Amino acid sequence: MNFMRMLEAAWARNDSLVCVGLDPEPGRFPAKFANDPDAIFHFCAAIVDACADLVCCFKPQFAHFAAQRAEAALERLIAHIHAQHPGVPVILDAKRGDIGSTAAHYAAEAFDRYGADAVTVNPYLGRDSVQPFLDRTDRGVILLCRTSNPGARDLQDLFVDGRPLYQHVATLAAREWNANGNCALVVGATYPAELAAVRALVGDLPILVPGVGAQGGDVAAVVHNGKNSCGTGLMVSSSRAILYAGSGVDFAAAARRAAQALRDEINRYR
Amino acid sequence: MNFMRMLEAAWARNDSLVCVGLDPEPGRFPAKFANDPDAIFHFCAAIVDACADLVCCFKPQFAHFAAQRAEAALERLIAHIHAQHPGVPVILDAKRGDIGSTAAHYAAEAFDRYGADAVTVNPYLGRDSVQPFLDRTDRGVILLCRTSNPGARDLQDLFVDGRPLYQHVATLAAREWNANGNCALVVGATYPAELAAVRALVGDLPILVPGVGAQGGDVAAVVHNGKNSCGTGLMVSSSRAILYAGSGVDFAAAARRAAQALRDEINRYR
Repeated sequence: MNFMRMLEAAWARNDSLVCVGLDPEPGRFPAKFANDPDAIFHFCAAIVDACADLVCCFKPQFAHFAAQRAEAALERLIAHIHAQHPGVPVILDAKRGDIGSTAAHYAAEAFDRYGADAVTVNPYLGRDSVQPFLDRTDRGVILLCRTSNPGARDLQDLFVDGRPLYQHVATLAAREWNANGNCALVVGATYPAELAAVRALVGDLPILVPGVGAQGGDVAAVVHNGKNSCGTGLMVSSSRAILYAGSGVDFAAAARRAAQALRDEINRYR
Repeated sequence: MNFMRMLEAAWARNDSLVCVGLDPEPGRFPAKFANDPDAIFHFCAAIVDACADLVCCFKPQFAHFAAQRAEAALERLIAHIHAQHPGVPVILDAKRGDIGSTAAHYAAEAFDRYGADAVTVNPYLGRDSVQPFLDRTDRGVILLCRTSNPGARDLQDLFVDGRPLYQHVATLAAREWNANGNCALVVGATYPAELAAVRALVGDLPILVPGVGAQGGDVAAVVHNGKNSCGTGLMVSSSRAILYAGSGVDFAAAARRAAQALRDEINRYR
């Protein structure tokens, strides 16, 4: 399946711009998982099953699995999403970036080993480091542009030819790297003015927007500044505020309520 | 053990600025590994054992293990280096970069799970994305500055305040991010003028220099432009030209000869 078409279909089918980020932290899991040797998979699969009809995509965060030695659980989780919820795309949030010959191995890791439909990629190494991902025309390549963290300003806001570096990246992605139509961008919800500037530069290109929920980004500003000409174009990502909405036996229902509330709030502003 | 002290000791003890990059590609392994289910570990360990007295560090490249589902082999390989060749530091070349809360998980992955002495980090997300690594004062944080690939120019050479972005990164690392004395930089051998410019900005800071060997960087220019005031300060990395120097039963001896030739060539110019 083609990532961009899956995403467009999921936006429409679920009437949702919500991306649920899967950032497992075993210390925050409900007590029922305390003695479960496969807790990471079971917790994430329960969240996925509770929210799949409310989202446009899921986004497992690689570091949270890798730090727990849980690559096998990550493989099974992505396979579970594809098997149980066909049509919901999976973004592997791994922020890869390496020289061309090594980037090919990272593309194989994300798309072949894990079976992700899209992957986040760091643009600092330039075109040939992104090319092995771009060449997979059925997969999405989501480039870091203006991230949601305070340190984003250290490099991304530096002025280059009269405009910030992140705008240069946005233009590179939209005008030069998107020949296969499979590029998207990451712009943090915590910087709505920057989101508007990027939207103005990139036409209808999809934008992954982390930073609502626990990081405090404003939903109204994100939708107003980030939506495209179709009223979509956004993957508004929330992780902790949904995953850990409840801590009891009803954690999955609590996650569903939180995802639904975010979907409805976003839709009020579309 | 402290990475910087280990590195300085290894430079002196082995009279070597050579870093052997461990980029396993099973398709290029000698025939004797064809039916070995643990071929990645056995091949890399044989290279390590053949070269350990000729190098200042080893650098396993994460993607080459991850694409092969070989995280367990990577863990055992690093443990093997520490057990069999104490004092030789290990750099995990993973080029991590994520927002602060996630970066902490990547630091745990590199330093606690894999036991690496240092890790390569992408600076595009700024200070707070690097801080969890910097906080591990006994470990090295090797920041991408000017990489060895053609696409490096797409972002790294853009002019910011009258100088290229990579020089801005070099200054940030040396003057602001190195409070714990555990920073180093990556500058590709394929751009010797840029290496000289970085050395002029960062004093004696160690620089990891990939790109000699298969990528064609000139050793004399690297040493001349990159060495510090002590005649060291460099980790000159070669991977494929050493790993695959031979393809027969004597592959490890061939790798040793290639590593020794590189060490001796470097030392002629110091």
